[in-house]
Amino acid sequence: MPRWNTVALVGVGLIGGSIGLALRKRRLATQVIGIGRRTSTLRAARAVSAVTATTTRLERGVRDADLVVVCTPVASIAQQVCQSAAVCRQAAAITDAGSTKAQIVAAVEEARRSGEPWPEGVAFVGSHPLAGSEKSGPQHAAADLFEGRVVVVTPTADSNPAACKEIAGFWRSLGARVVELSPEEHDQALAVTSHLPHLAAAAIAGTTPNGYAGLTAGGWLDTTRIAAGDPKLWREIFLSNRTNVLSALGELERHLAEFRRALAAEDAAALERLLAEAKQVRDAVAS
Amino acid sequence: MPRWNTVALVGVGLIGGSIGLALRKRRLATQVIGIGRRTSTLRAARAVSAVTATTTRLERGVRDADLVVVCTPVASIAQQVCQSAAVCRQAAAITDAGSTKAQIVAAVEEARRSGEPWPEGVAFVGSHPLAGSEKSGPQHAAADLFEGRVVVVTPTADSNPAACKEIAGFWRSLGARVVELSPEEHDQALAVTSHLPHLAAAAIAGTTPNGYAGLTAGGWLDTTRIAAGDPKLWREIFLSNRTNVLSALGELERHLAEFRRALAAEDAAALERLLAEAKQVRDAVAS
Repeated sequence: MPRWNTVALVGVGLIGGSIGLALRKRRLATQVIGIGRRTSTLRAARAVSAVTATTTRLERGVRDADLVVVCTPVASIAQQVCQSAAVCRQAAAITDAGSTKAQIVAAVEEARRSGEPWPEGVAFVGSHPLAGSEKSGPQHAAADLFEGRVVVVTPTADSNPAACKEIAGFWRSLGARVVELSPEEHDQALAVTSHLPHLAAAAIAGTTPNGYAGLTAGGWLDTTRIAAGDPKLWREIFLSNRTNVLSALGELERHLAEFRRALAAEDAAALERLLAEAKQVRDAVAS
Repeated sequence: MPRWNTVALVGVGLIGGSIGLALRKRRLATQVIGIGRRTSTLRAARAVSAVTATTTRLERGVRDADLVVVCTPVASIAQQVCQSAAVCRQAAAITDAGSTKAQIVAAVEEARRSGEPWPEGVAFVGSHPLAGSEKSGPQHAAADLFEGRVVVVTPTADSNPAACKEIAGFWRSLGARVVELSPEEHDQALAVTSHLPHLAAAAIAGTTPNGYAGLTAGGWLDTTRIAAGDPKLWREIFLSNRTNVLSALGELERHLAEFRRALAAEDAAALERLLAEAKQVRDAVAS
């Protein structure tokens, strides 16, 4: 028997589409409703069978859902969580898949406290699946995207414990490992492990003159791969985690300055030490 | 009929081993002699059939070679080229596979001019195959490592034109595309397309606290992959291309400072422009 009668996915891009495919493949939901603004994206989500029905009207799409997952760009998430909460069923659980958490979770909790329409029994807990790629759109969605991957779930003191359990169980049912962090802990860590690498990859690509394209190889390709990501999406992620990204960037700049000093001074020992420390960190994380 | 009777490979790690495998698979050489200091590496090269014979004595290994390829770390190459030249056959051609070129080529030409033993007819032209990985050793060698990859060949005004043609033909016979640059042009370009990405990957890995290892995903893994490379090898590469790497690092630091300014000022338009420019560079290079 399916675990959910109706799951509503607000946004059916790479992440929303992959959730839909995983829910359907694992027979976890009777209905998967895809909600989006662009009919072309909704059509693509239907074409890959990521959803059982689609609509451009959020209110209509979430009305019967037991579970709502908001998978839109970070700048839209808080508002769409609140819109969903206002119209969805009693006892529905809402989560999201945004790459930053503190701003989103604070905005939702603030709206709820300040008297936005929010039925008793509807609960929100933030999530961030550490999965994705430089590609986007439901045509790149994959049913196994979350298998073995980490999903960070970010409850607060205001969160409903039963909803936390349900949201963690939802991600586990897609094959993910769940890690619980506060929204602030999440943003501080992800600034270093995700947002900074993206910024650095973009800076390396930006530093490469067009005429050198033919002289790139594996190292450049790996190091700059994520620079192919969507500039608008990443602009929002950086702005939404601005202070932490600035502080991670400061750490990177200090590290680069150490390399500069060692290289300028022809200090072979310092250079080797910096490289060996980096190798140790990299080797500790598989593949 | 094989193109070469005897090819000597000084160094049978990832690159030397892959050359041996490619020569043998394509039946380009009757004999492939592997030369190395460590008997364990020589044994591993024999085990994967990258060579037909091995020796720890360079003089003995290169004596009968028509072609000598020096595939050792950059700091040893010039000396081993000169040692090989002193004892090898008249009309033998020598090249190398080092990641930097100006210092190596200048050292060899200087030694030759300053009266080191160097038989008439023996020619040296520098090479750099843009292939490799963060892995090392003959056990990771692959016969197809050079297929479709670029090899930069770096003749100078002193180079023998027939030898240039032979060395370019050698790499093409392994499936590579050959690009001709001066040693200085090579080093300036590779500082940006290879050495800087390595340095940045190491700095990103070095910036990541151990406790965050569980919160890394695809972006971090791609961006830091080459930081797993051998610290000693890369220390030598950086030192051997010091001025160009320092100047490429300066460009990266300027780019990061632009990101910092845009982020600090919450300048969404500037942030998006920087990301879009990077995406354009990255998208222009496939995979």
